Amino acid sequence: MENIIDKFKAGETRALARLISLLENQDPSHEDILKELFYLTGKAYVLGFTGSPGAGKSSLVDQVVKALRAAGQTVGIIAVDPSSPFTGGALLGDRIRMQEHALDKGVFIRSMGTRGSLGGLAKTTKEVVKAMDAFGFDWVIIETVGVGQAELDIMHVADSTVVVLTPGAGDAIQTIKAGIMEIADVFAVNKCDLPGSHKVVAEVQIMLDQQCSHDGWRPPVVPVSCLNGQGINDLVADIQKHRTYLLDNNILNSRRSERTRAETLDIAIHKWKEKIFTQLKLPGRVNELLDKVGAREIDPYTAAYEILEHVSSEEQENN
Amino acid sequence: MENIIDKFKAGETRALARLISLLENQDPSHEDILKELFYLTGKAYVLGFTGSPGAGKSSLVDQVVKALRAAGQTVGIIAVDPSSPFTGGALLGDRIRMQEHALDKGVFIRSMGTRGSLGGLAKTTKEVVKAMDAFGFDWVIIETVGVGQAELDIMHVADSTVVVLTPGAGDAIQTIKAGIMEIADVFAVNKCDLPGSHKVVAEVQIMLDQQCSHDGWRPPVVPVSCLNGQGINDLVADIQKHRTYLLDNNILNSRRSERTRAETLDIAIHKWKEKIFTQLKLPGRVNELLDKVGAREIDPYTAAYEILEHVSSEEQENN
Repeated sequence: MENIIDKFKAGETRALARLISLLENQDPSHEDILKELFYLTGKAYVLGFTGSPGAGKSSLVDQVVKALRAAGQTVGIIAVDPSSPFTGGALLGDRIRMQEHALDKGVFIRSMGTRGSLGGLAKTTKEVVKAMDAFGFDWVIIETVGVGQAELDIMHVADSTVVVLTPGAGDAIQTIKAGIMEIADVFAVNKCDLPGSHKVVAEVQIMLDQQCSHDGWRPPVVPVSCLNGQGINDLVADIQKHRTYLLDNNILNSRRSERTRAETLDIAIHKWKEKIFTQLKLPGRVNELLDKVGAREIDPYTAAYEILEHVSSEEQENN
Repeated sequence: MENIIDKFKAGETRALARLISLLENQDPSHEDILKELFYLTGKAYVLGFTGSPGAGKSSLVDQVVKALRAAGQTVGIIAVDPSSPFTGGALLGDRIRMQEHALDKGVFIRSMGTRGSLGGLAKTTKEVVKAMDAFGFDWVIIETVGVGQAELDIMHVADSTVVVLTPGAGDAIQTIKAGIMEIADVFAVNKCDLPGSHKVVAEVQIMLDQQCSHDGWRPPVVPVSCLNGQGINDLVADIQKHRTYLLDNNILNSRRSERTRAETLDIAIHKWKEKIFTQLKLPGRVNELLDKVGAREIDPYTAAYEILEHVSSEEQENN
């Protein structure tokens, strides 16, 4: 373990890959790794890309990565989109294009499988973001399909979120329904070479007119095309504007600190659950109480309070 | 409070309605009510109906309720389907039909709003099931739209679950995707007067052939029509068969006892969270620790363990 962390700190990409695997597999060393990484994090800017399947998120990420690389920035990419070329759901052309980056030391790509629950995926994604951040990438990009609650949870790790839309029947309306309007900091209307893209831009603007601005930022709506590269520089510029906005208004730091607090509380709650589940595996007070509830000798609330007290006292004795 | 509980125990429908409102609003008396009700529960048979919007679940529930009433059984209905006539999304005809039941003392209908989170809805629905059970209904029927995880969670309260399908493009396939195949104990193929219903029945049978049976029960597939009443008696008979199967194999009791255990643990975890959140509102150790994490003086894990210890010791001191 020590050895991997040292190599990680020395900037060895293979050590990063190993650490990520340990995190993904919830290896016993998992917690120690996160403790070590914590002090190295907080430097990368985390950028989320979300949108419905087929919106062309991967191609867009590819273009944005190229632009960032051209500006000398390093980028870690996490693909949690099952239709992404990184995770294997794409055309040969996409794969070949991404292989360009595979040869670039300044880009690291990791695809996240959807094994296990989506809830677990959100947790693991957050941890992989930390690993990439600690490794020293200037940017960490997360790509998800914006469909379910789990994907929205993942996006809450991002400092800025780009929602990708395309000209298509009711796309904008679908976006509101899915609840991703609220998390959009920048809208990218992809495939702007196709007819109907002006309509999508107009629709989103109307929706934004009706909406209260969040924290005083009105998300810009940028037409882009991965086919001819149109709008990519504008998109990157708007992302930078949002970043500057967050920094200037002290929102970035307060949000990150809020997130760290929430994570700490999540761990405390998770550890509490672990304590209860450990007790469940043994005969003893907790199982006794549960049996009594099952036999309707006591009610669930009375039993829960006694469990709370019992586990607390065990915790005290262990300290 | 005493007064309402007494009236509730005396069988006054208005007291039931009041109690349900108190539960829904998470009134301070909420916990005391559930403690009281607990010893009265466990008698009703809980039946779930789920399926995509437009599958005709409400009409089917209506027919099943009529059949149960004809057999002298009393029924409490919880509609968590936004497209249900109970919750207001339906045609005038549906409303008039349900009003028949409104005049029947043996039927109690409650619609659940979707205010607040869907997760909260699952919790409240479970509590309303308990209230109806404790009130003495022979059956409690829950109707939901089978789309999201929250609705699936709601269905885990049901002893038997009927999944309602209709002849329509890819309906059966959609059902697998949504993960409701696993929770189906009986399939009702509604609108069996329409062309294509034989195909749906066959498709579901093929899917069942490929699937491992759960607990040795193979869900029957019943063609029904609310238009001419076809198959309704078969459906009710199959539900009864499933009930008998669960009883004969001691599955019903073991599942219910498992559910009560899980609920008790949920309460213990919820109470723990409440304790932490109470501490968050005050200056003191927990906020101190979180501030230190925010300032990166300590890592989240170290802080979480200290929070755990602190809250445990507070719990001990209070006892």
